[in-house]
Amino acid sequence: MHGETTIQAFEALSVETLGGRLERIPAVAQRVGRDSSSWSVREVGDGNLNLVFIVEGPRGSVVVKQALPYVRLVGESWPLPLKRSFFEYHALTRQEARAGVGTVPAVYYFDERQALIVMEYLSPHVILRRALIEGRMPPGIAGDLGLFAARTLFRGSDLHMKAGDRKRDLALFADNVELCDITENLVFTDPYFEAELNRHTSPQLDGIVAELRADRDLKVEAQRLKHLFAAKAETLLHGDLHTGSIMVTDEDTRVIDPEFAFYGPIAFDVGMMLANFWMSYFSQRGHEKEGDRAGIRRWLLGVTVEIWSVFRQEFARLWRTERTGMLYARSLFEERGDALGSEQALGQFLAEIWTDLLGFAGVEIHRRILGLAHNADFEAIADEDLRAGCERPALRFGRHLAVNRARIHSIDEVNALVQLIDRDHSA
Amino acid sequence: MHGETTIQAFEALSVETLGGRLERIPAVAQRVGRDSSSWSVREVGDGNLNLVFIVEGPRGSVVVKQALPYVRLVGESWPLPLKRSFFEYHALTRQEARAGVGTVPAVYYFDERQALIVMEYLSPHVILRRALIEGRMPPGIAGDLGLFAARTLFRGSDLHMKAGDRKRDLALFADNVELCDITENLVFTDPYFEAELNRHTSPQLDGIVAELRADRDLKVEAQRLKHLFAAKAETLLHGDLHTGSIMVTDEDTRVIDPEFAFYGPIAFDVGMMLANFWMSYFSQRGHEKEGDRAGIRRWLLGVTVEIWSVFRQEFARLWRTERTGMLYARSLFEERGDALGSEQALGQFLAEIWTDLLGFAGVEIHRRILGLAHNADFEAIADEDLRAGCERPALRFGRHLAVNRARIHSIDEVNALVQLIDRDHSA
Repeated sequence: MHGETTIQAFEALSVETLGGRLERIPAVAQRVGRDSSSWSVREVGDGNLNLVFIVEGPRGSVVVKQALPYVRLVGESWPLPLKRSFFEYHALTRQEARAGVGTVPAVYYFDERQALIVMEYLSPHVILRRALIEGRMPPGIAGDLGLFAARTLFRGSDLHMKAGDRKRDLALFADNVELCDITENLVFTDPYFEAELNRHTSPQLDGIVAELRADRDLKVEAQRLKHLFAAKAETLLHGDLHTGSIMVTDEDTRVIDPEFAFYGPIAFDVGMMLANFWMSYFSQRGHEKEGDRAGIRRWLLGVTVEIWSVFRQEFARLWRTERTGMLYARSLFEERGDALGSEQALGQFLAEIWTDLLGFAGVEIHRRILGLAHNADFEAIADEDLRAGCERPALRFGRHLAVNRARIHSIDEVNALVQLIDRDHSA
Repeated sequence: MHGETTIQAFEALSVETLGGRLERIPAVAQRVGRDSSSWSVREVGDGNLNLVFIVEGPRGSVVVKQALPYVRLVGESWPLPLKRSFFEYHALTRQEARAGVGTVPAVYYFDERQALIVMEYLSPHVILRRALIEGRMPPGIAGDLGLFAARTLFRGSDLHMKAGDRKRDLALFADNVELCDITENLVFTDPYFEAELNRHTSPQLDGIVAELRADRDLKVEAQRLKHLFAAKAETLLHGDLHTGSIMVTDEDTRVIDPEFAFYGPIAFDVGMMLANFWMSYFSQRGHEKEGDRAGIRRWLLGVTVEIWSVFRQEFARLWRTERTGMLYARSLFEERGDALGSEQALGQFLAEIWTDLLGFAGVEIHRRILGLAHNADFEAIADEDLRAGCERPALRFGRHLAVNRARIHSIDEVNALVQLIDRDHSA
């Protein structure tokens, strides 16, 4: 061991070395216990990118998340910089400040060089995606997620922040190049041609996949959305806000894993989130036993309605009470007795988010079925014909959203489409 | 004098000290002459923000431009950071690389700490705005400016650059906060309420000014454009591309003064540029003697048509031949035999630039008549009634563009409007 002030080179943690390396850190010792020989350390094997350990001791438990210089799931052939841990740390602190304590895991300690974050161990939380696959309906999620999205996205934008603070933060997160690159390629481009890392349920979906890849309007729209994603530096996004990045109990909702954080369009986070509930809807038939999933299907559509409704209401509340940034200055509207002008602008602003989020939802659905990173909602359906029967209508729905997004007016209309397409196109 | 490696604190140059301070710099000595006692130094007094000197010697001439820690025109009460010189330097080098040698002044030397740039002395060039006020019609400008805009704006975007390079550059220029702040406030907000620094031709315009400041649709649209300006980090802009930032002879066109450079929407540079030709049109009556300005009025409308046409053609050419960035990847289109898909996307891309540039043109016109930074086109008209008679139709035109931009289809339609409004509303 070197002295405490020595800067150490990066070294991956293991179950064996973790205790010795972290026991001297006061923030850890306080929460777990002073003597690491009394700790129990286990690795959680389900991260795609990183190492995750649960550390339990006499005083309590923490999670230790450490980035590796490559993609854990793939190995050293796919290098990925350690600095993603830096962006995750900075995103977590901003999200907590904007959405409130208890919306993300509390951060106890961050070591930039070791790319490790020690944070709150969430228990008895489960990953929302798994709960949905099991047919569970955690009651509070829609409200919690609508509020989380509205608060983080509004308060990270020029509607609320000082312009100089936002520009400084934008510059900080602009360095998250490699993780943006993953989204840029895997979400917006790869699904629409024969990219090497793609896969899909084959041969069942071969026909529709060929159809989608020959669909000019769809490809053009996916690239317009990519442009929007890359160029509309509107607010600090979570960047990967799907149901696998949400942990829940019946009482609590936490958003985790914001390492894809960067400045992008508000609609991206909201669209990706809604898309994952719609995918859960389409996947339910694959998990059904004797018609037991009718209830959760209805409930999932209700969740999308409530998320969007709570998001709108909270965004509007913040617009009226916390519009302290340089955009839509009160000096032009409320302070001249023209509150209606500010409402007119709010309506336009939300309408633009709506149109764009439908597009982002559409491509998110496609990439989860056609690209590299599939989701368990569909993957856990072992019978390939049954799985393809769930994926096919989801693909059609995604295409409709991406291409027709400017002509879809309400979430009820979208949900009516979901039901129609699910009925007509699963065969 | 300290040794050459000593880092010296910033010190403003003067006619007296410039020679002694710059003669040891090889890049300067080579171009002007070794012995500064043989130099002739004069200050050019017309910069709003900076010190500008012309230095002539036995070997040749250079321009020395130095930022001051405040706005030169206003004084120390309006501080402005020296780093604007850093952004000007980096913008000049990028513009030269993208639009070609001879489109901007050549840079010979840059000293970041002293905030000074030694650059090519352009002679016998004159500021384009002054030429237009005098009724001159420099022949090559429309083609040169259309090419300059298309090349700098395309090649600085994700259509051409590597994503990581663009994000790094975006982070660099995100620090140009204070100059962006000037644009954000002076262009998009101040003209639309009684901001302290505003002025207008009064009492002649009081009526229309009150009308515009009560115009809800206009204010909302101006703020939407501000949002676009601040959030759409699409390409490296010049940021202040008006006719006062262009120097011309009958054979040559140079774009100068890019200290407002930052990543913003393509449409901003193009819209500001066209707006200044339209303002020149409206101002010509104020400079007319015995009907001698009919020719330049026709010519000015032709310049706008040609700039937009050349811009579109060159942008399309680059789209087809230099689309090497991550957007609209050839692997989705040309490489699948779908060149038409790429043309469809190009059409959409240009249509969006068109709609947005009209909005930016509209607010640019307003701020030049209602805000702090007026332009000489109107200001040089001494008779206030005559000046107001030129400014009033320009204000009406700007309002029409900003609010109706999504429903205006062609530049010919815009120019027909210019003529109509000029005829009907000058009285």
